[in-house]
Amino acid sequence: MSGDLRKPQPDPGASRACPQPPSLPEKLQDLAPAQARFCLGILRGMEKTLERPLKGSTIFAAFSGGADSTSLLLALRWLRPKAGFALHALHLDHGLRPSSAAEAEYCRKFCSELGLECLTQSLNLKNEGTSGVEERARKARYAFFAEKAAQTPNALIALGHNCNDLAEDILMRLIRGTGWPGLSGMRAYDRRRALIRPMLGTPRTRIEGFLAGLGVTWLRDESNLNRTFFRNRVRLDILPLILRENPSFLEAAAGLRLLGGADEEYFAALLADAAPQDPKQTVFVSGQRLAGLHKALRLRLYKKILDALGPGQTRLATLLEADAAWLAGKGPAEHLLPGGKKIRTEKRGLSFFAAGEIP
Amino acid sequence: MSGDLRKPQPDPGASRACPQPPSLPEKLQDLAPAQARFCLGILRGMEKTLERPLKGSTIFAAFSGGADSTSLLLALRWLRPKAGFALHALHLDHGLRPSSAAEAEYCRKFCSELGLECLTQSLNLKNEGTSGVEERARKARYAFFAEKAAQTPNALIALGHNCNDLAEDILMRLIRGTGWPGLSGMRAYDRRRALIRPMLGTPRTRIEGFLAGLGVTWLRDESNLNRTFFRNRVRLDILPLILRENPSFLEAAAGLRLLGGADEEYFAALLADAAPQDPKQTVFVSGQRLAGLHKALRLRLYKKILDALGPGQTRLATLLEADAAWLAGKGPAEHLLPGGKKIRTEKRGLSFFAAGEIP
Repeated sequence: MSGDLRKPQPDPGASRACPQPPSLPEKLQDLAPAQARFCLGILRGMEKTLERPLKGSTIFAAFSGGADSTSLLLALRWLRPKAGFALHALHLDHGLRPSSAAEAEYCRKFCSELGLECLTQSLNLKNEGTSGVEERARKARYAFFAEKAAQTPNALIALGHNCNDLAEDILMRLIRGTGWPGLSGMRAYDRRRALIRPMLGTPRTRIEGFLAGLGVTWLRDESNLNRTFFRNRVRLDILPLILRENPSFLEAAAGLRLLGGADEEYFAALLADAAPQDPKQTVFVSGQRLAGLHKALRLRLYKKILDALGPGQTRLATLLEADAAWLAGKGPAEHLLPGGKKIRTEKRGLSFFAAGEIP
Repeated sequence: MSGDLRKPQPDPGASRACPQPPSLPEKLQDLAPAQARFCLGILRGMEKTLERPLKGSTIFAAFSGGADSTSLLLALRWLRPKAGFALHALHLDHGLRPSSAAEAEYCRKFCSELGLECLTQSLNLKNEGTSGVEERARKARYAFFAEKAAQTPNALIALGHNCNDLAEDILMRLIRGTGWPGLSGMRAYDRRRALIRPMLGTPRTRIEGFLAGLGVTWLRDESNLNRTFFRNRVRLDILPLILRENPSFLEAAAGLRLLGGADEEYFAALLADAAPQDPKQTVFVSGQRLAGLHKALRLRLYKKILDALGPGQTRLATLLEADAAWLAGKGPAEHLLPGGKKIRTEKRGLSFFAAGEIP
């Protein structure tokens, strides 16, 4: 690739955070076989997930400078000539750490050495050190991604989540009380948001091995060690106990995701006409309609309607309560959900209210 | 109830293991309101699970002398006149601990004070202190239960599993890589084996509170603290971390079980004619038949056939591999499963072999 990525770069104030990339092979064909296989596996996986070739797409690769996004960006950079897509990096500087500006600078330089454009946006999120800031950072990140995707035809946002992230996500969902198929974790492809996660089946060790083999270092996010955050407690305290019981647990998580994906698609097809496409106000489902559906489908119908009514995670327990209340033919009762949504159960059927609506 | 259960009983060599039951109210009506509610909740739950009244049933309550089975036995003893079932206790002396004969004696006396018959069987399982012994003890216990149920019309075997056991079971299944709906844990009712678990929605704390309120003590199984056993590591090390994250996790587990039960019933109804009722030998499913089924249903069909072919837990990963191999139209390949079962994938379809069959 252009330039010598091993050459020291002036980087005042961020020497810890900004290791220097080495000079790298220019072409896919110049890689060692294991490294080329890593890249080709990503291409095959993406095209299988999308059920189409990547030719003609514009891929925006989210790039934080960490191991996952560095390996994904490098792999896509090497795959680009073969697969025929356009490639840009996206970096969001959340402004949450003193080092974040230097990290953004590192990312820009890394991309520039690869001959890639690095689209950067800077925020200034207030960091109270609580979990709330993680959620706000996540929202800001996805809004930035969505904006980029909306401006470009055939755009894809590629995210670096790996199989360890998936396993953590499944555990977090289990702990929170998520139902099935949501329990099976984040998706490899979110068509509506044009998000793709090409490394969701790849364990972190393999990603770090790929970079180590290339002599590439990466930024380490020390907030990953902060047990204030739920995800970090799962990663640092719970997942290791589970991997000790079953060293193949990451494979199990990957399998669960595939099964959940199949079930999600299956239920979605069955309920394609059952719920309003995009309800903005109260949705009423009659008892007669509900009586014709198996409980397994009724519960998914409720979830589908609630998801369409706005943000807020639906607790399975609330859906079960509402269904049981309707089945028991009880008088009117209200069931409150996160995000201000409500279900009203009556003998004649169920009404679903968006936040702020008065039942 | 008959006799004074608080009266000291001669019990040489097992004084630690055999606390003395106090005198107890004779009738349901004599219980404190919270205790009566505990009992009536069990009755309501059982009749709802069975979808019929318990009148005319013969309930064999598995009784180890521990907190769960003691509270279940007491509740059933108080419910018996109201609900109109016959009641016996079943105790299996596994012979695994020096104290086990004294524990069996304690159980017989406890039942005798309640005016109940305690059917006891003694085994002499060899205890190497490994997990294998737990599995053999479990098998022996269920074989003993099955024998009793087979001898009596309208028999039910009532087991003391509680909501903590369910949560542990879900975690163990998750760790092992179980698919959905199996992941949702043990069932409240197993029609084929006439097993019912009336306290599966009840947390351990509530059960111990019920006994404490009555002044009844119970046998403590010290092997529960032995981290040689997978279940104990889940109970002692993993579940507490999860309950710290979500103190309502037991409710989440109970909800997951209900959803899994609905899905199991739903898939079973769809596949009622899809698999042989009770295959004893090779089952072949043509590619044409598979092509007409959604992946969500194909995977459940494979599971159903394999379950019918004999014991051995089916790993989800193997089912996904076999399905992917068939979809990819690959040449003949064999996929091995626990219990000696096999799947052979070919373009023309899938063959399922019981243990010992030569593909």
